[in-house]
Amino acid sequence: MIDQRLLPVREVYRVYSDYREVARAIKDMVIRGAPAIGVAAAMGIALGVRTLKREELRREFDKICRTFAATRPTAVNLFWAIERMRRVYARNDTRDVETLRLMLEREARTIHEEDIAANRALGAYGAALIEDGSTILTHCNAGALATAGYGTALGVMRAAVEADKRISVYCSETRPYLQGARLTAWELKKEHIPATLVTDNMVGHMMKEGLIDCVIVGTDRTAANGDVANKIGTYTVAVLAHRHGIPFYVAAPTSSIDLGCPRGDKIPIEERGSREVTHIFDRQIAPSGIRVANPAFDVTPHDLVTAIVTERGIARPPYNKSLARVVRGETPKREAAARPRSSAKRQSKKG
Amino acid sequence: MIDQRLLPVREVYRVYSDYREVARAIKDMVIRGAPAIGVAAAMGIALGVRTLKREELRREFDKICRTFAATRPTAVNLFWAIERMRRVYARNDTRDVETLRLMLEREARTIHEEDIAANRALGAYGAALIEDGSTILTHCNAGALATAGYGTALGVMRAAVEADKRISVYCSETRPYLQGARLTAWELKKEHIPATLVTDNMVGHMMKEGLIDCVIVGTDRTAANGDVANKIGTYTVAVLAHRHGIPFYVAAPTSSIDLGCPRGDKIPIEERGSREVTHIFDRQIAPSGIRVANPAFDVTPHDLVTAIVTERGIARPPYNKSLARVVRGETPKREAAARPRSSAKRQSKKG
Repeated sequence: MIDQRLLPVREVYRVYSDYREVARAIKDMVIRGAPAIGVAAAMGIALGVRTLKREELRREFDKICRTFAATRPTAVNLFWAIERMRRVYARNDTRDVETLRLMLEREARTIHEEDIAANRALGAYGAALIEDGSTILTHCNAGALATAGYGTALGVMRAAVEADKRISVYCSETRPYLQGARLTAWELKKEHIPATLVTDNMVGHMMKEGLIDCVIVGTDRTAANGDVANKIGTYTVAVLAHRHGIPFYVAAPTSSIDLGCPRGDKIPIEERGSREVTHIFDRQIAPSGIRVANPAFDVTPHDLVTAIVTERGIARPPYNKSLARVVRGETPKREAAARPRSSAKRQSKKG
Repeated sequence: MIDQRLLPVREVYRVYSDYREVARAIKDMVIRGAPAIGVAAAMGIALGVRTLKREELRREFDKICRTFAATRPTAVNLFWAIERMRRVYARNDTRDVETLRLMLEREARTIHEEDIAANRALGAYGAALIEDGSTILTHCNAGALATAGYGTALGVMRAAVEADKRISVYCSETRPYLQGARLTAWELKKEHIPATLVTDNMVGHMMKEGLIDCVIVGTDRTAANGDVANKIGTYTVAVLAHRHGIPFYVAAPTSSIDLGCPRGDKIPIEERGSREVTHIFDRQIAPSGIRVANPAFDVTPHDLVTAIVTERGIARPPYNKSLARVVRGETPKREAAARPRSSAKRQSKKG
């Protein structure tokens, strides 16, 4: 996996041969982004069982799963992926050990492939919401780096571009970990999508100046009522969008929707170490010994969310009904996916 | 002057013997904060005329003033201080050159002393707004470092502590220049006021969690209608405070109130270089060549401002009337200043 801590200055790839190293990589944010850590955990479990004999596998499987479950608490994709691996194990634990290991590996690969396919489908639905000529704000990184590939929020932007829409993007830097500055700006630049980097506290000013047409963000866990846990700062962006009458869209693959969680206040919010705030890389930016708060996520209440885009369609308020319906695959009729390369049929806004 | 760019890790004092160095120090943010740069400009003008002969002074005075006026555009204190120096010059330009130079020096010293006195008076008025046991959020640095001493927003906190109120403070780090993390956290720590540092994008979450009782910020220029220009991110904090029903106070010495400016949209907003956003100190945090926006200030509309605290009293909406009255020194009767050390008479909220 690419070491996301070193981007955008260095592109270094890490290869792990021990599942504990993969778990450590998730905890230390070598890899991050809810869908990506789900995929990484599944791959890690497959790696963990690779050389185990029958009895070892029986003894170790639960421990391996628990090691991954203990890495990060907020993103539900992690638990969803572990659960899928557990189910494959439970259904096949009477088979010979080689077959069982192969089935676990296949499940991890399937999760990986399904994630990319889901992002592409989600992108097509989301792209239909984006008007030609729009300027989109996104926070944190919900791009290819945060997923198995293509991205959720950034997938919507990619799909909009593939549908020949002209877009530009503002990305907020996303302190303390700077995913916006380091990762989203890097992805957008690679894709040649016009992008402007701003600090998190500039978003209100940009909206007030009329520079933002809509917001699209990812999610680490969306509750059954449509409350959205996402990277710290997302709630602030949503409040600002609401004040300015700007649509606030959430790109949420169904793997990140937790119908078992009724409301956002039930979502555990990870508190990370103070050094992420007091230091930027190795540079100290605050007085020694200052008290710090570092919640890694916040919860945006559903009343600030204009629509939730999934790979099975778009959910609109009230979310208690629409999210359950969309997760079941019952796509609302009025929401169609954007079709790539349909420019001949479109009317251009900007002539 | 202390080199604020190096705080909190290093305390380095700079001594300048040439006025152009002082102007450069303002531009490069060795010194920053609206009242402080007003005082620095006045001192710099006094320094600039120090060795000039009669004819040189006549030739150079306007140029020296213009050098300072060209340093930073938003803070009105700068122009206010330059104007005071110009007036002393105009009123006395027939006197002998030595007397004139001394009068200019005396005016600069007076501006310096008046600023500290104004901060103390402002602090006493503001402290009366702070309930015992409050947690206050402040953005950027409006402390002793931003003024001749004592501070405006931080002066209110100091005065509250002097009036035996128990307060604690959240300071937001204030990207890109990190005045909150580097300067406010440092001042609060020196004063032993309990302080917690957060990134700018955590403010919404903290308010939602009920952790903030009120906001106090400084201002670089307040228009006649009560629109407040202040450090980028202030508008976002004000929108969040409004959503959560949290009072939003502005500490504005009358030197920062521009009654000649009718509305906030007439205030020039300084756009600074992109490197402040793409780099933190010398560390690159964004891909090379990414487009950047870097407005140094934003404008908070008056309808989000609960009260404006000056050294002559507290202005409440509608500001068009109240600000003009307060600047004239007509203090509203219902607003009294807090008295230091009056703890015996107070009722404690927290027992």
